[in-house]
Amino acid sequence: MKKIAVVLSGAGYLDGSEITEAVSLLIALSQAGAKVTCFAPDIELSEVNHLKGEATSAKRSVLQESARIARGHVQNLNLLQEKDFDGLAFPGGYGAAKNLCNWAEKGAKCDVNPEVRRVILDFYNASKPIAAICIAPVLLAKVLGDKKPTLTIGNDPATIAELQKAGAVHEECPVDDYISDRETKIVTTPAYMYDDARPNEVFAGIFGLVHELVEWA
Amino acid sequence: MKKIAVVLSGAGYLDGSEITEAVSLLIALSQAGAKVTCFAPDIELSEVNHLKGEATSAKRSVLQESARIARGHVQNLNLLQEKDFDGLAFPGGYGAAKNLCNWAEKGAKCDVNPEVRRVILDFYNASKPIAAICIAPVLLAKVLGDKKPTLTIGNDPATIAELQKAGAVHEECPVDDYISDRETKIVTTPAYMYDDARPNEVFAGIFGLVHELVEWA
Repeated sequence: MKKIAVVLSGAGYLDGSEITEAVSLLIALSQAGAKVTCFAPDIELSEVNHLKGEATSAKRSVLQESARIARGHVQNLNLLQEKDFDGLAFPGGYGAAKNLCNWAEKGAKCDVNPEVRRVILDFYNASKPIAAICIAPVLLAKVLGDKKPTLTIGNDPATIAELQKAGAVHEECPVDDYISDRETKIVTTPAYMYDDARPNEVFAGIFGLVHELVEWA
Repeated sequence: MKKIAVVLSGAGYLDGSEITEAVSLLIALSQAGAKVTCFAPDIELSEVNHLKGEATSAKRSVLQESARIARGHVQNLNLLQEKDFDGLAFPGGYGAAKNLCNWAEKGAKCDVNPEVRRVILDFYNASKPIAAICIAPVLLAKVLGDKKPTLTIGNDPATIAELQKAGAVHEECPVDDYISDRETKIVTTPAYMYDDARPNEVFAGIFGLVHELVEWA
């Protein structure tokens, strides 16, 4: 049974993990027979009202909110050890670009959360596969840019340009498919980078991504 | 294209909609080609810390939190008109038993939110199908108990006894299957009423439930 670590960043696409992406990942991983453990950093997020799409002044805990997706079974990211797992996966949502790094504010000049940087480097250096969904590939572009990984991140020219500035090679991909880079063992799918995507299309892309991740693991 | 109304109750199984159930429902409905509109009542919920499983003193908005699952596309439940839809569906989570009614506190003697009661009666009276997942069948037991609907709600004897007190007939069902009552056009699946269920099993049960719902719609 392949053991996969999933890194969440809250619960809700505007300030945390995109919920349909995160759940699609958990369903597809359990369909593939993988054993999943969820992690999240123990840091604060700035709340966004998802009905109005507007920031509030409130803070929430990334770890506590991630626990909503994982039914309480989420561990502090600083406990994640590469040696205990066969692969690593990041769902998308603005949480990946606001909480796991500050790409949303600084683009290719962003800072990556030190624990997130550590686990990405640990899995890469151990030749273990890494999957990233939607906007989460920016984490891999920033941390592993010098390896020139081939990634997909939708079709917004400004986002693609920024990804390339970080060192990655961009390849466009339909929502229900995924991009594999065999050199770096990185697999990515655009999901809700296409804002009008339907849940079944997002699931199909993530299902394919998971198949590749588990095969490489 | 069948039009299905989904009624959410927050985002997180301890104080809102169970997230894997809600997303499984949305994925399966879009796989079936249905057009989905999400609704939630504009009321408060009492927050539960999902990491510790403990109530906090904070309140959140059921409508705003539901918007996290629906990517902002959720309407006030008082706008839901039976004439605009072919079927109705309720995911589970404690939100169904705490926010849509107070079953969690009062069992078969519970009060049902007036808008929830209205929409259940409207769809039933129009002979349109209703699906309910996990603990959400208690809403149908309470509102339609005099029709003696056959429902499934897991295998906890106390919960089953309470469901029967409300007038329903209980039928046990594995997590990856569902129970159809052709008389009342109600379809139910136990999902996380089995606490150790895996996401793929929950998805399989909901996939079957959706197939039946859309066929009847």
